[in-house]
Amino acid sequence: MKDDFPHKKRVEVCSSPKQFELYQWDFSIVVAIDVLRATSAICAALDSGVEKIIPVSTLEEAIEYRRKGYLVGAERNGEIVEGFEFGNSPFSLMEERFHGKTLVLSTTNGTRAINIASKTHTVVVGSLLNLDALSSWLIQQDDNVLLLCSGWKDKFNLEDTICAGALTEALLATNKFKSDEDSTIAAMFLYQSARDNYFSFLKHSSHRRRLKRLNLNRDIKYCLTPNQTEVIPILKNGALEKYRPE
Amino acid sequence: MKDDFPHKKRVEVCSSPKQFELYQWDFSIVVAIDVLRATSAICAALDSGVEKIIPVSTLEEAIEYRRKGYLVGAERNGEIVEGFEFGNSPFSLMEERFHGKTLVLSTTNGTRAINIASKTHTVVVGSLLNLDALSSWLIQQDDNVLLLCSGWKDKFNLEDTICAGALTEALLATNKFKSDEDSTIAAMFLYQSARDNYFSFLKHSSHRRRLKRLNLNRDIKYCLTPNQTEVIPILKNGALEKYRPE
Repeated sequence: MKDDFPHKKRVEVCSSPKQFELYQWDFSIVVAIDVLRATSAICAALDSGVEKIIPVSTLEEAIEYRRKGYLVGAERNGEIVEGFEFGNSPFSLMEERFHGKTLVLSTTNGTRAINIASKTHTVVVGSLLNLDALSSWLIQQDDNVLLLCSGWKDKFNLEDTICAGALTEALLATNKFKSDEDSTIAAMFLYQSARDNYFSFLKHSSHRRRLKRLNLNRDIKYCLTPNQTEVIPILKNGALEKYRPE
Repeated sequence: MKDDFPHKKRVEVCSSPKQFELYQWDFSIVVAIDVLRATSAICAALDSGVEKIIPVSTLEEAIEYRRKGYLVGAERNGEIVEGFEFGNSPFSLMEERFHGKTLVLSTTNGTRAINIASKTHTVVVGSLLNLDALSSWLIQQDDNVLLLCSGWKDKFNLEDTICAGALTEALLATNKFKSDEDSTIAAMFLYQSARDNYFSFLKHSSHRRRLKRLNLNRDIKYCLTPNQTEVIPILKNGALEKYRPE
């Protein structure tokens, strides 16, 4: 059979920021994924009317922004850090008082994944919430795509991997992309096992158990419901904003 | 329901040596897994009559052993390194001339995984070849078990993860073990997808493609056929030998 796309683009899955250095070289676009909850919250916030979100990795930076008068959220281990306005619950970032504003956000895993690639790559934010819109956007770009799972403190994370598997499948289905890595094949298999019921599939995941203990079931259900927005958060000059065609 | 084993042991899967530092602390036993082909070859060699195998990580060490007159094998990128007696093909380690002998072996991934834990943990060698025997042995031990996949140059590897998933399932089935990590849940799901036909499931795996290019289909079929030996290779004083009850 004739192959219409002899020069296919690559899409691969990197399962944690700790593995990023092994994968980074061949890709122009990095999709940062932290389903529970940072990248879901960022999609929800920009969709609801927040203007920009500055992702910062450390609490030191978050405190410095707060000192300068910014609206700053910080989450560690699933909870809002004392003294900050909000954490990484999507609902807390959608409050009306934040519409049109620039927020600053530091989280356990997600903002680190966003920043690790910020100097070298085009960084966009992925979640189940913007799955179809992001897939379509990635397919339009003429670049290799690395799906970077935020993981949990550098370890493998199930819901991020499943989201990456879903994106992979959508890109490969176009026949314009190819994958070489076992991590990518595994993510697709895990997605195929999970696709019919994310909530049930993830009932044993470590982070879902962690959040359940914190009474965050409403957040979990929201973050595991695909395609609630068409926003593509893209990092420009250190801040995430809605992608708008030039 | 009353839980007969309130203090369950843990079994977890670490998907590459690069992740080992994140997992190592809670475990006494480390199972090094490199299905294609180092740990399969080690099981096959000890089963066929090889007395001991000294795993070395670097080619420098391998050359030094060769200088001292040892029988030394070395593999890099799937091929025998020039100047060495053998690589990591199971068949090459089963030759009659090696019976009763001590061999030295250095491979791309497997021997590194074995040595990374050698100073701090009890290290045994796992593969599909000794799956049931190793599961039974691990169940008898009163220790937490870390299943360490050798991966491919620090990256995730499908066949090692599936082997780790098979061991996990066997241990959890006894009700004496528990798992907390998402990497472990993922390995079990991947095993459950693969269990009915490893060979077919792995047809797209990166390393199988790599070995197929090198005409190693006979090796692949052998390494993917479970339960060909009851040998448990255990590391003692720097050398792997058959586990024998004291």
